[in-house]
Amino acid sequence: MPYVNIKVTREGVSRAQKAHLIKGVTDLLVTVLNKNPATTFVVIDEVDMEDWGIGGVPVEEWRARQSSST
Amino acid sequence: MPYVNIKVTREGVSRAQKAHLIKGVTDLLVTVLNKNPATTFVVIDEVDMEDWGIGGVPVEEWRARQSSST
Amino acid sequence: MPYVNIKVTREGVSRAQKAHLIKGVTDLLVTVLNKNPATTFVVIDEVDMEDWGIGGVPVEEWRARQSSST
Amino acid sequence: MPYVNIKVTREGVSRAQKAHLIKGVTDLLVTVLNKNPATTFVVIDEVDMEDWGIGGVPVEEWRARQSSST
Amino acid sequence: MPYVNIKVTREGVSRAQKAHLIKGVTDLLVTVLNKNPATTFVVIDEVDMEDWGIGGVPVEEWRARQSSST
Amino acid sequence: MPYVNIKVTREGVSRAQKAHLIKGVTDLLVTVLNKNPATTFVVIDEVDMEDWGIGGVPVEEWRARQSSST
Repeated sequence: MPYVNIKVTREGVSRAQKAHLIKGVTDLLVTVLNKNPATTFVVIDEVDMEDWGIGGVPVEEWRARQSSST
Repeated sequence: MPYVNIKVTREGVSRAQKAHLIKGVTDLLVTVLNKNPATTFVVIDEVDMEDWGIGGVPVEEWRARQSSST
Repeated sequence: MPYVNIKVTREGVSRAQKAHLIKGVTDLLVTVLNKNPATTFVVIDEVDMEDWGIGGVPVEEWRARQSSST
Repeated sequence: MPYVNIKVTREGVSRAQKAHLIKGVTDLLVTVLNKNPATTFVVIDEVDMEDWGIGGVPVEEWRARQSSST
Repeated sequence: MPYVNIKVTREGVSRAQKAHLIKGVTDLLVTVLNKNPATTFVVIDEVDMEDWGIGGVPVEEWRARQSSST
Repeated sequence: MPYVNIKVTREGVSRAQKAHLIKGVTDLLVTVLNKNPATTFVVIDEVDMEDWGIGGVPVEEWRARQSSST
């Protein structure tokens, strides 16, 4: 009876990729915990870049810093 | 001081239906747990069909399978 | 296919009260949105008093202030 | 390794305000718990007014009532 | 920069099974979306049986009904 | 009317530190968005170390690797 929530930044995740995530997570729960797929929910949230922070700054600024530091 | 989050698939839930859900859940918490409505929050999330998985597939595919199997 | 999460402070909610909440929320989703109970999940979280803040303070301090101000 | 989720009503929160929230929360976790900013995530959700309930009604109705009662 | 939350009923999930879930979900996000494991969080919540409802009843009652109906 | 959820690993966070987090986050929402503290909720979740994954492994293993790699 699992419920899985996947949050990723909104950067053009396709329908096929979402379907792949849903299948992969469900299969994993069947394999590891013998869960029933019929009562396994997966909910994907795409989060706008300006709404995701890491390192104290929005994610785009974080990535810019990471690239420039290498 | 309850916080309730309701997630449903995005399929044309009306404002009136949302207001009905908010009232119904709040009344329930008052009745069952004697909570104060003034500090009871209800947050509704409508989730796009392609972002909701069940049975290892996106919900539309799941429903199509259920119908065809009957 | 709804998923509902109810968070309340941990103050001795009984099994019967939890069952009442589960039934009440599920019935509401059937009534308002014609959802299928078999694919409606309700998850209840009891949150320790020291982990819940309102008005900038832990909830017990908040309640003490409210009472003393009346 | 903290994860922080901030939900607010959608009422024109600017990019600068979001960046301010991200910085403020991250700094707080560094100050209070000595967390590493590089593994501190902040996710902001703006929730449509009709999707947020308080006092058993949608938030706009709640605010209208509060104003008229003063 | 994904964040994944997995909720399952509390029924003796072992440390090894949790590690398996963490690895499996992280690998999936690398494979499907090319995400960086170093900024991929997985948080597992075990939910007490009395706190999980399906079909309008707590999960143990639901399972008892399913078995007796076959 | 904000709702904030803070998840941290369970490593002996004290009541005073929790109260500090609650006050800090609430003050931030007042400063940045002019929110009303009386309708600002903060919920803190402490997550067991074995339930938090990063880099595809449980957090303790991750930390051990990070230290040994320096």
